[in-house]
Amino acid sequence: MHDKCLPGWVYEDCPASSAHHREAARARQDRLTKPTGALGRLETLAIELAGLQHTERPRAAHVPITVFAADHGIVAQGVSAYPQEVTIAMMANFCAGGAAISVLARELGSRLEIVDAGTLAEAPMNGVVTDKPRRGTRDFSREDALEAAELAVAFDCGGRAVARAAASRPDLLILGEMGIGNTTSAAAIAAALLQVTAEAIAGHGTGIDAAGRAHKARVIDAALGRRGLAADSLPERVLCAVGGLEIAAISGAIIAAAQRRIPLLIDGFIVTVAALAATRLNPSCRPYLIFSHRSAEQGHRLVLDALDARPLLDLDLRLGEGSGAALALPLARAACALHVGMATFAEAAVPDRNG
Amino acid sequence: MHDKCLPGWVYEDCPASSAHHREAARARQDRLTKPTGALGRLETLAIELAGLQHTERPRAAHVPITVFAADHGIVAQGVSAYPQEVTIAMMANFCAGGAAISVLARELGSRLEIVDAGTLAEAPMNGVVTDKPRRGTRDFSREDALEAAELAVAFDCGGRAVARAAASRPDLLILGEMGIGNTTSAAAIAAALLQVTAEAIAGHGTGIDAAGRAHKARVIDAALGRRGLAADSLPERVLCAVGGLEIAAISGAIIAAAQRRIPLLIDGFIVTVAALAATRLNPSCRPYLIFSHRSAEQGHRLVLDALDARPLLDLDLRLGEGSGAALALPLARAACALHVGMATFAEAAVPDRNG
Repeated sequence: MHDKCLPGWVYEDCPASSAHHREAARARQDRLTKPTGALGRLETLAIELAGLQHTERPRAAHVPITVFAADHGIVAQGVSAYPQEVTIAMMANFCAGGAAISVLARELGSRLEIVDAGTLAEAPMNGVVTDKPRRGTRDFSREDALEAAELAVAFDCGGRAVARAAASRPDLLILGEMGIGNTTSAAAIAAALLQVTAEAIAGHGTGIDAAGRAHKARVIDAALGRRGLAADSLPERVLCAVGGLEIAAISGAIIAAAQRRIPLLIDGFIVTVAALAATRLNPSCRPYLIFSHRSAEQGHRLVLDALDARPLLDLDLRLGEGSGAALALPLARAACALHVGMATFAEAAVPDRNG
Repeated sequence: MHDKCLPGWVYEDCPASSAHHREAARARQDRLTKPTGALGRLETLAIELAGLQHTERPRAAHVPITVFAADHGIVAQGVSAYPQEVTIAMMANFCAGGAAISVLARELGSRLEIVDAGTLAEAPMNGVVTDKPRRGTRDFSREDALEAAELAVAFDCGGRAVARAAASRPDLLILGEMGIGNTTSAAAIAAALLQVTAEAIAGHGTGIDAAGRAHKARVIDAALGRRGLAADSLPERVLCAVGGLEIAAISGAIIAAAQRRIPLLIDGFIVTVAALAATRLNPSCRPYLIFSHRSAEQGHRLVLDALDARPLLDLDLRLGEGSGAALALPLARAACALHVGMATFAEAAVPDRNG
């Protein structure tokens, strides 16, 4: 494993946010009929989006959702509360419209694309884009989860998903994930990237108990030692050693979207870990990340802190699928509507503040 | 001033939440295709609404917004960053569609009603329901803000607004407020009801600086002493002594809505203080209060704690108008959509958890 072994596009710079449009947006916020700063984080969100979208009229109307699914060899070590077949069954549920993200996508008017980035499914499934280098990762307690060439395919899978979504000129993008065992892979990646123990990161995932969580942390910490990650945080190496295919695809998708100047609403623990890896590989993507929520998963706070991120919501969610990002989208829409639709003091003939 | 001097309806019990429907909703949440509890606070919100609405299909579709405006004699003491004329100018802005709550009401498809519950406006304004016992409160640093009969009219004003809104059978109700100086009245009410000093409660309101805030706290604390509230927390007395007309109308509206079994999305500092007064007058309204956000106004946290309330959002808002409640409505809508629209494990043939 050497540095920069991923496809070359991964390392290319993302365009900068427009300081001109940010400043214009800030000035407009101060003229709107409300006390200065009274809309709090919605003001900063509108200003941020104006800068990223290079516009005076930031938008969050058209927001497709892409969910990446994959399986994880590490489930052989008994780290999940649910059987592995759930990954494939949930892909079918996404397509049939019965999953949480399916319901939210309908509510939001968002197109939902499901990508099989590495599940155990043997044949392509109806309604699913199959784009995977292999069926599931290897059990990282015994060997590297992925070879470098497989990791590269996963990044390209994320890039291709963004290219498909970009065709309809989205205002923002939401990425989600599904994969039994993926909080274990994500915790391992985060522990290695942040050089902390799994004990500090690993949480209850889909609902294992305290003994299950302790076992999960032990499995991860042992594997980090065996995979040589106890003192190696090179993201390419970390992702090969313990990474999930959907997580790598999401890291790739984040970078690809930022390169196309599409801001992303970042979901919970797993997508945030993918975002951490993405910013380690290509720091110029960071301004495009809007963090939607702080989940109930214990490691999420640590990873958010490492990214200097303050999410919009804190609702004890721990579902994944992109559901937390979908729940934050109405706030982004409101921020844009208020920015564009409110009257200024002059327009409404409202007296401005004293003095 | 004697106990229970308000109109008799104010003290009548609100119907109880249905334990049967809450239990059925809880059981359904556990059968939906997600890990148990993974939707966090959206699950408890759906369960709560099912109980309050006595239904298996909780709804947050039809949600009118009523904004009560009034003026405050206490502004003569220089407690606000904005001139008093802003109250009336903002009523016009609400009606013209340029205010934050106007934009949010459009986005949400909510009917917006503006009630002049006591502004200085001499003539009825176009598009505004005028329902007030007097023009503005008296300066409570010098005399009682309201007489008992005036306070009673304000409660009836709130009751009448709910009767109008109830005609269209709303799923929830949002109440908002506008009134230059009303964070000072609200802080005085909260300090008296909670028997703490204004120093602990009074915040920056629409944007006064540190010296302005200290002055505001001194004005309130001196007035609490002069009005005899330093050791009297009878809500009827507190509202007469330092109360705002829009605040009293909102207390009345909260009780009236709960009596009609209409849950309320409670907005920021001022509406929360009105809710505190309402629960002191009639504790049976408490289950109907869904707290939407924690504002940047310093006293809000204290008042929320006193109500044992954990709001949905925390976005540094400090605008009022019902805007924070409007921003939380999409979460209530999502909670209902997920509860009603997701597939169960059995329906989707997804394997449930191990063991």
